[in-house]
Formats: sequence, structure tokens, C-alpha cells
Amino acid sequence: MSSTDALGTSAAQERSAELEQLIRKDPGQFRILTGDRPTGRLHLGHYFGTLQSRVRLQDLGVETLVLIADYQVLTDRDIAENLTEHVEELVLDHLAVGIDPERSTIFTHSALPALNQLLLPFLSLVSVAELSRNPTVKDEIAHSRQSAVSGLMFTYPVHQAADILFCKANLVPVGQDQLPHLEVTRTVARRFNDRYGNGTPLFPQPEALLSTAPLLLGTDGTKMSKSRGNAIALSATPDETARLIRGARTDAERHITYDPRTRPEVSSLVLLAALCEGAEPNAVAQEIGDGGGAALKRRVTESVNEYLAPIRARRECYAQDRALVRGVLRAGNERAGALADATLREVRAAMNADY
Amino acid sequence: MSSTDALGTSAAQERSAELEQLIRKDPGQFRILTGDRPTGRLHLGHYFGTLQSRVRLQDLGVETLVLIADYQVLTDRDIAENLTEHVEELVLDHLAVGIDPERSTIFTHSALPALNQLLLPFLSLVSVAELSRNPTVKDEIAHSRQSAVSGLMFTYPVHQAADILFCKANLVPVGQDQLPHLEVTRTVARRFNDRYGNGTPLFPQPEALLSTAPLLLGTDGTKMSKSRGNAIALSATPDETARLIRGARTDAERHITYDPRTRPEVSSLVLLAALCEGAEPNAVAQEIGDGGGAALKRRVTESVNEYLAPIRARRECYAQDRALVRGVLRAGNERAGALADATLREVRAAMNADY
Repeated sequence: MSSTDALGTSAAQERSAELEQLIRKDPGQFRILTGDRPTGRLHLGHYFGTLQSRVRLQDLGVETLVLIADYQVLTDRDIAENLTEHVEELVLDHLAVGIDPERSTIFTHSALPALNQLLLPFLSLVSVAELSRNPTVKDEIAHSRQSAVSGLMFTYPVHQAADILFCKANLVPVGQDQLPHLEVTRTVARRFNDRYGNGTPLFPQPEALLSTAPLLLGTDGTKMSKSRGNAIALSATPDETARLIRGARTDAERHITYDPRTRPEVSSLVLLAALCEGAEPNAVAQEIGDGGGAALKRRVTESVNEYLAPIRARRECYAQDRALVRGVLRAGNERAGALADATLREVRAAMNADY
Repeated sequence: MSSTDALGTSAAQERSAELEQLIRKDPGQFRILTGDRPTGRLHLGHYFGTLQSRVRLQDLGVETLVLIADYQVLTDRDIAENLTEHVEELVLDHLAVGIDPERSTIFTHSALPALNQLLLPFLSLVSVAELSRNPTVKDEIAHSRQSAVSGLMFTYPVHQAADILFCKANLVPVGQDQLPHLEVTRTVARRFNDRYGNGTPLFPQPEALLSTAPLLLGTDGTKMSKSRGNAIALSATPDETARLIRGARTDAERHITYDPRTRPEVSSLVLLAALCEGAEPNAVAQEIGDGGGAALKRRVTESVNEYLAPIRARRECYAQDRALVRGVLRAGNERAGALADATLREVRAAMNADY
């Protein structure tokens, strides 16, 4: 949390590009911790924003752990009351997009007592003043629907440090807004090593892998989000997908171009088609030309449905076998739990508390 | 933490007297959680303040768990660096005074991941505003040598709720200054039950058993405390004890009386002798009469050394066998760990998180 350690965004971008090179050269030296809060089915914004990259890194040979942060949704009563369902949907989405449970580890932090215990020694290394200063927490506090902020929300960045450090992950894919959070984790790791390391650092200082994915807008032109009803879920049917895209906001200009700055809604649709087709947005726009919004939407609908077809088929297949889904989670929790137990043993030994 | 739940001190005293009656009638309905931070060897102030009562309650047949709160000394570097030794000394002191590891459970919370995990759901039930208001935390903050207050200190009352509720203790011996802390535990228990209980409360709302022990002063007339060098440790030798008492502060009045208000130092010595002899302080004072400070100190020294002789002999005996001490702690941690695991399972099921 000291300013000397906070990488500026452009420095973080440069370093991320370097890291991408290093990953391609030697993926075995990296362990990635990534994940989501179980707030609902994942959508195309998640897919092109992070999921696709998770699968890519896994397939490059980077050890990948996918956290389902189920303790971080407790204040949302709707979610908390259907937690199991929300968690299983998240597992399904990951299996559908290609996270391979043989190579990657999908787990819930609530199933890992040793991970959660790390919160205690870590909290001793961070001051209340530092927790209050964290910009993302400030933001959460400002936007919270609660009249009061819970102790859980206040200590969230330190719990996140436990989420990352329990498995000694050295790489964390993040968006720019999450850089301050990751800085807390780096601070905790450094302070723990300084205080208890006896010269041998126990924890790595994980680095940020900044996403380079372009931003997809929802069908209403704002940020894609399930709660706004403007998102195309991975699990939507082709018909639902068609209907959502048909209702998408465009503009009065019949000639289709790709210009995210001046025509954000149209450009986001062009981008979506391009991402699905593996094409350049400008090429897609040119092909549609004077076809107008209707032609654009037909093209996007076709491309999305074609792209998602195998993902949806896999999802449907796994969804038929809930025992398998639960088995994937149990196996992931066991594997992650063994890592957490080993780390806690080391932590307790370093702290002279292995009686 | 709402004022409607905070018992006033006199109400708490009345209720404690009632509880003493209930304990004598049916000790089996109570489970007590008590304990200390491992800050050093225990002294006579601890003994007559709390230890003696722990043994009494154990011997009445109340199930007793003795927590060594080793995560709550991390900010004290001197202690943290010799944690194992401090913890073992605390176990030794308890064995010496008569805590029977066959009937009572001595444990360290750092060895119980499932206990520590309870901090997470509990933190979601308490607001930052409430944590900031807690008078004992305020006091800690005001008296702390640290320039900043750690997240661990800030969340301490909620961690204490986990310490108490993991074993579903329904009785907690406390001093008056700890009533607000216990109120946090009661609040957490009530809120958890309301939110996740489905009509069946998972946690009891533990009650305070207020100490009725009179206050012993240190040899300098201030509160007895190891750090002030004014305390007689249970493990002190008879010679050390004699020297400490010889140096104790008295007053110029040769005639010995028991009047704690006007003659606090002399009265505390009289009280100490009386406690050791099982006599009335006034009777002890009368017997010494015009003997003055020297006679008083001889009497106190003899009484203390005689009273502590069997305790010291047991302590010495156990101290020779560190493997046994460690075995007691390991067995206690296993027993407490099983309780914590069972409670966490129930908590996760109540929260729909037993995937």
C-alpha cells in the first residue's frame, strides 16, 4: 500500500506484456489465481473479458486456480439463499468454456479453513488506516446499498490476500480497477516475509497480469451486467440471444463503421461479431457497409450463436450431470485444501506456533 | 451491541449470582469458555482473580475450555518471537493450579482453522461502525503503543465471538471491563441465528459470569501486572516471593487493619494472607495487630509460600516433562478442533454452503 510499490497503470501494462512473453517461454514458472464471486451465470462480457484468457493461460501450461469467492456474496440475501445453485452455475460456466478440471483447480474459499485462517496473521500486518484508504473499498462503501459497511467488506482486501497467497500464486489477472487490491496482497506478502521469513521469503509477491481485452457494452449501451438485463449469458438459448441482440441499442446512421469513441453501441456490436469470428472489427464493419442496424444484428446473432454453440452444448451436457459438477468442485476443494493446509503449516512454523 | 441487550453492571452481578446457583444445581447444562493471551507466567493476581474460579467450576462438573489466545499477541514482537515458550508456560500454570486435562480442554486458537474460519461469516454480521464504537477497542486504540491500530486488533471482538461460539459455550467468566466484548459475541450469535437459523438457533447467546474476586494490588500498590515488576508469579521461588513481599509498599501506621479504601497497600497484603489461609481479612489484621509492616510481611510470605507449595511442586514436576505439556496441548487442540469442525459443518449447512 505504500506508493513506492504501486505500479502506475502504464508501467503495469508494460510489465504485463513482458509477463506474456515469459509465460510463452516458460509457463511452468507461473501459478495463476483467478476467479469470481458467484453472483449469477456468466455472460459474454465475462467471456471475452476474462474467461477466454483463463482458458488460454491454462492451455499454455500455466497452473490455474479458479476461486469461487462464496464468502464475498453473503451480504446479498438473494444470492446467499441460493448459494449452492449460484456456485454450481459458475462451475458449469467454467467447464463449458474449456477449463479442464484435470489441469485446473476450481474451488470455493468457504471450503478451505486453512486459507481462511490466514486472514488472522495477515490482519495483524495491515492497519485500519490502510484498510480505510483502499480506493476500491472506499468505492464499495460509497456504492453499497447497505446503510452500514460490514466488517467482512472492510477486511475484504486482506481476505483476498489469503485467497491469492494460500497457493503462492505469483500471477493474478486483473482489471485496472483491481490494482489497488492486488497491492494489498503484495504488501501483506512482503511484510509477512520481512517479519517471519528469517531470510527465506515464504510468499511470492504476486504480479498483475492486466487484461488487454476490449470492453464489450451491454445491449443498452452501458456496461454489460446481469443485473441490468443487458447481458447475453453464455447459457442463453439461440432464441434468447437473437431477441436480446434484436433489442440492442444502435444509432440512426445506416452505414456501419467501427468507431468505439463516437459510436459506442454500434461498435460494441461490431466488436462482438469480430471477436466471435476471430476477425478485425473494421473488416466486419466494411462487410456490413450500408446494411444498417438490422444487418449488423443478424450478423452478430449468427456469429454469437455459432461461436457459443459448442460451449452451450458442453454446458448442457454437464448440466445434465450435477453429480459430476459437484464432484469437480469437491476434487478442486480437496486439491486447493491440500495446498492451503501445507501453506498454513509453513506459516505456523514461521510464526513459532507449530506446537 | 444495541443498548437494549447490554446488561448494566448491577443486573449482570445479579444474574451472575443466579447463575452460580444454577451451576451448583445442574453443572451439566453449562459449557464455559475462558482463557488468556500468552503474555507471560501467571501471577497471584491471575490466580485469585480467575484461575481459582476456573478450577472450582471444573471441579463442580462444568465443562471447561481454556483458550490460549495466541493470535492476539502477534503485535507484541517479544512475545511473538518466543510464542512456543509463552504458550507452554501458560499450559504449565494451568496444570499446576489444578486444571485437569482429562476433564478440561486447554487449546490454542491458532491450531483450529475451523474456529478461525468462523471469523468470516461473523464479520459479515457486524458493521465497521459497530466495531469502531466498542469501548474496549477504543481503549485499546487509545493505549496502544503502535502508531496505527492493526486490522487484527480492530476485529478482535469478532474473533472472540468465534473463540466462544465455536464450542457453543453458554457461559463466559469475565471482568466488568469485558462485558462490551461479550455483548459483541451475543449480538453475532443472535444475528447468525436470525439470518441462518431457519427457526432453530445454531448458537447459544453466552452469558457473563462476573468475577466476585476482590482486587489484589501489586507490591507497589498499583494493579498487579508482570510488566510492572510488582507481581508474584505462581512459579516464583519461595525466596523470590519473600524478597518481593519484603519490598512491598506499606504505610507508616504500625497498627495493622483491613481497610481497602483508606489503606490499600496494607489491606491488599492482609487480603493476600487471608486468601491463602482461607481466613477473614479482618481476623488476619487483628492477629497481627501492632506487629507492624514487618510482621505483616512475614505472615504474608509464610502464607503465600505455604499455599503455593503444592502448586509449585506440581508445576516443577510438569516442567520436567515438556513432552507431556506438549501432549496436553495437542490433545486439547484435537478435542477443541473436533468441536470446531463440527460447528463449522453446521454453519456451512445453515448457510447453504455444504457443497
